[in-house]
Amino acid sequence: MRFDKPIPVTTIAQLIGARLAGNINGQVTGINELHKVEEGDLAFVDHPKYYDTCINSAATFIIINKEAGFPEGKALLIVDEPFEAYLKIVNHYRPFNPSMKMISDTSSVGEGTVIMPNVYIGNHVQVGKNCIIHPNVTIMDYCVIGDNVILQAGTVIGSDAFYYNKKTSRDIHYKKMNSCGRVVIEDSVEIGANCTIDRGVSGETIIGAGTKMDNLVHIGHDTVVGKNCLFAGQVGIAGATTIEDNVILWGQVGVSKTLTIGKDAVVYAQSGVKDSIAGGKVYFGSPVEDAKEKMKEFVWIKRIPLLWEKVMGRK
Amino acid sequence: MRFDKPIPVTTIAQLIGARLAGNINGQVTGINELHKVEEGDLAFVDHPKYYDTCINSAATFIIINKEAGFPEGKALLIVDEPFEAYLKIVNHYRPFNPSMKMISDTSSVGEGTVIMPNVYIGNHVQVGKNCIIHPNVTIMDYCVIGDNVILQAGTVIGSDAFYYNKKTSRDIHYKKMNSCGRVVIEDSVEIGANCTIDRGVSGETIIGAGTKMDNLVHIGHDTVVGKNCLFAGQVGIAGATTIEDNVILWGQVGVSKTLTIGKDAVVYAQSGVKDSIAGGKVYFGSPVEDAKEKMKEFVWIKRIPLLWEKVMGRK
Amino acid sequence: MRFDKPIPVTTIAQLIGARLAGNINGQVTGINELHKVEEGDLAFVDHPKYYDTCINSAATFIIINKEAGFPEGKALLIVDEPFEAYLKIVNHYRPFNPSMKMISDTSSVGEGTVIMPNVYIGNHVQVGKNCIIHPNVTIMDYCVIGDNVILQAGTVIGSDAFYYNKKTSRDIHYKKMNSCGRVVIEDSVEIGANCTIDRGVSGETIIGAGTKMDNLVHIGHDTVVGKNCLFAGQVGIAGATTIEDNVILWGQVGVSKTLTIGKDAVVYAQSGVKDSIAGGKVYFGSPVEDAKEKMKEFVWIKRIPLLWEKVMGRK
Repeated sequence: MRFDKPIPVTTIAQLIGARLAGNINGQVTGINELHKVEEGDLAFVDHPKYYDTCINSAATFIIINKEAGFPEGKALLIVDEPFEAYLKIVNHYRPFNPSMKMISDTSSVGEGTVIMPNVYIGNHVQVGKNCIIHPNVTIMDYCVIGDNVILQAGTVIGSDAFYYNKKTSRDIHYKKMNSCGRVVIEDSVEIGANCTIDRGVSGETIIGAGTKMDNLVHIGHDTVVGKNCLFAGQVGIAGATTIEDNVILWGQVGVSKTLTIGKDAVVYAQSGVKDSIAGGKVYFGSPVEDAKEKMKEFVWIKRIPLLWEKVMGRK
Repeated sequence: MRFDKPIPVTTIAQLIGARLAGNINGQVTGINELHKVEEGDLAFVDHPKYYDTCINSAATFIIINKEAGFPEGKALLIVDEPFEAYLKIVNHYRPFNPSMKMISDTSSVGEGTVIMPNVYIGNHVQVGKNCIIHPNVTIMDYCVIGDNVILQAGTVIGSDAFYYNKKTSRDIHYKKMNSCGRVVIEDSVEIGANCTIDRGVSGETIIGAGTKMDNLVHIGHDTVVGKNCLFAGQVGIAGATTIEDNVILWGQVGVSKTLTIGKDAVVYAQSGVKDSIAGGKVYFGSPVEDAKEKMKEFVWIKRIPLLWEKVMGRK
Repeated sequence: MRFDKPIPVTTIAQLIGARLAGNINGQVTGINELHKVEEGDLAFVDHPKYYDTCINSAATFIIINKEAGFPEGKALLIVDEPFEAYLKIVNHYRPFNPSMKMISDTSSVGEGTVIMPNVYIGNHVQVGKNCIIHPNVTIMDYCVIGDNVILQAGTVIGSDAFYYNKKTSRDIHYKKMNSCGRVVIEDSVEIGANCTIDRGVSGETIIGAGTKMDNLVHIGHDTVVGKNCLFAGQVGIAGATTIEDNVILWGQVGVSKTLTIGKDAVVYAQSGVKDSIAGGKVYFGSPVEDAKEKMKEFVWIKRIPLLWEKVMGRK
């Protein structure tokens, strides 16, 4: 999330009641996921395991729950509960302020674009030129749709991230991590009916130019899909994953979070991708393996009865 | 389903042309699923296999297609076709009478709740306080939504049960079992985009307080989900199943009907649960097994070629 | 797709800049998929592998990228790019001309049918008698809905086919094959919530009389489903497949393209059907096998450790 204009770090420290250490004259330009941060960005960390990664990331400002060493030019904002501080910033600078119009006055729609009946377009949405937005589509606040994009009926762009902070005081429960990120759909993307594409928590969910998706596909928050990918029906991709260019996922494939599928990979139907896989290969299985190896495995399994007979005598 | 006020059993017997045996002075207070019935409830049974269970359940009134012994204080309503009698009662006391307004005048919406554009809210729906109902959501008649509930765009609450009576006269065909039950969503539940939660056939589909679901999740009729569960994207749960508290189902998990998943169970992505499983454990596979055992199985399968070589000589 | 009235083949040849060989006096009555063409139909072929099949099909008129022999009475329309010629014909005779009304004036709705709020019905749609079309349903142009049909909320009928022409000039990209076909839903079909049924590319996607589908089901373009089938939640069927009568597919089953599932077949939950399977049997697995054989396989796999011990000595 980019702020409309840079915010003095002192202002943010005051908002969240943080003790400030380091560069107190800095200007905060945005909030972002740790693996996407740039100079001027604010990130937060509350687990010692990630202290170093966060402090040494490109982020200039770090909300943290412990004093720690940090490079020159950066600043720490020290609070007891970094997660609560994050929520306070989001609610202050990007409050939920829903448009009650079908198409918000603060959104823009390019020339030649057709918006069919029953479509909802939220605040600060940008839709490009020569798009077709079919009936009953929902596009939530701040999302960006390129040129020549087709969204089939019933699809939802920019639903909230499925991202919760687990609380174990008294009983287990989950506190929503409010999403302030957005979805960016590049040019010539075509998305089927009743798909769902979640916004980034603080970053961007991106669908690369020329990618085509069939119906009932789910894309999680902060996932980045490359150019000219093909996803068949009912594919599901979890959050913060990277799918490189020209990847083909056949029907009902499931992909786990925070992994990478390399360029030109093909994954056969109903497979499950739980770790990163290299590009240029064909995969099958749940969890996936090289497709040919997996096929051979089916043959080997069929040979067990014969092995049994040889080893154990008559069945 | 609760009747608006108790109905004399004689009135119902007359409506469905039943012969009445036993307590003819009783008042019927509702209809319910056999495993959920309470005193005053009406249940129906048409298969000898279930006669005893039904007659000895908590139900006070039993529609049945054969004379049978029954405990004192109960009544039998004897008809040739109990299923048709059930339909007659539903159509009489809960006829399909759809609201043609976007938000029915007979529904109530609590303070602080935001209903976004294009939402449909049917008759006799109750929505609690401080909820956010996103665009293009549908909430059908008689459903109940608690406080602090979030429903993302395109989600459907209270679609009809997928429940049919198979008829084999001449050809196979299916006759719809009209749903007169409802969906009850408790406080602080959050449901993703384009999910579907079916109403109970005559009972209630319940989503327990604090439970969070990702997008494209399907919950069948009369299923009861406990508190503080987490369901990832594209999970599907069939009818009349019980999911206890704190259960976590990862992406694309499928759960069969009328079973129980115990408290604190975790089921890994793409697994299939076809029988009841105990709480407090981690599961994987289709059908599911203990996750660690299942992982070992993958290793064993990879050893078949070596076994083959040992037993059969050179490959 | 049927033309409103027959078109002289010379008119079409002129439109697409084709050289005409053979019966130049013919009248073209429609465009259709190769496996569905009838006399008077136009088909197109651009791959030498399919030249013979196409020329010897029932189609009277063939758009082709090479001179070739053909039976008397037929005509070839020779162009460099048959796919581009097809697009030109579709865009000319069935241009995308979306209705901006919730219910188009060019559609018809039968007596006794209930159309609930927020439903979109496109141009030239026919809806039969005594149907219930629930809120937020979308029915796109030219689709046909029979009598006594129920469509639950959020379902999309007639979304575009997921069908692209792969272009490899410079980089890989995909060009949309515009759909000019339709969806035909026969009498007494009931479809759950948030389902998606794609229109045929040039032919028809058909759902046979009496078939019932649960929620979040996806049916691909040009697929033909028989009568009185049952599809449970989250079933996905790819394009141009044939499902015969009385087939039962349990939850999350995936079915590949251009295959046939025989009459009365039953496929257990989460299975994957990648080739045609015979009727009257029960299947399980991904890819599917005879269900009993597949179950035995699970037992055999569990015996590998014992085999290992016997052959290798102590584990």
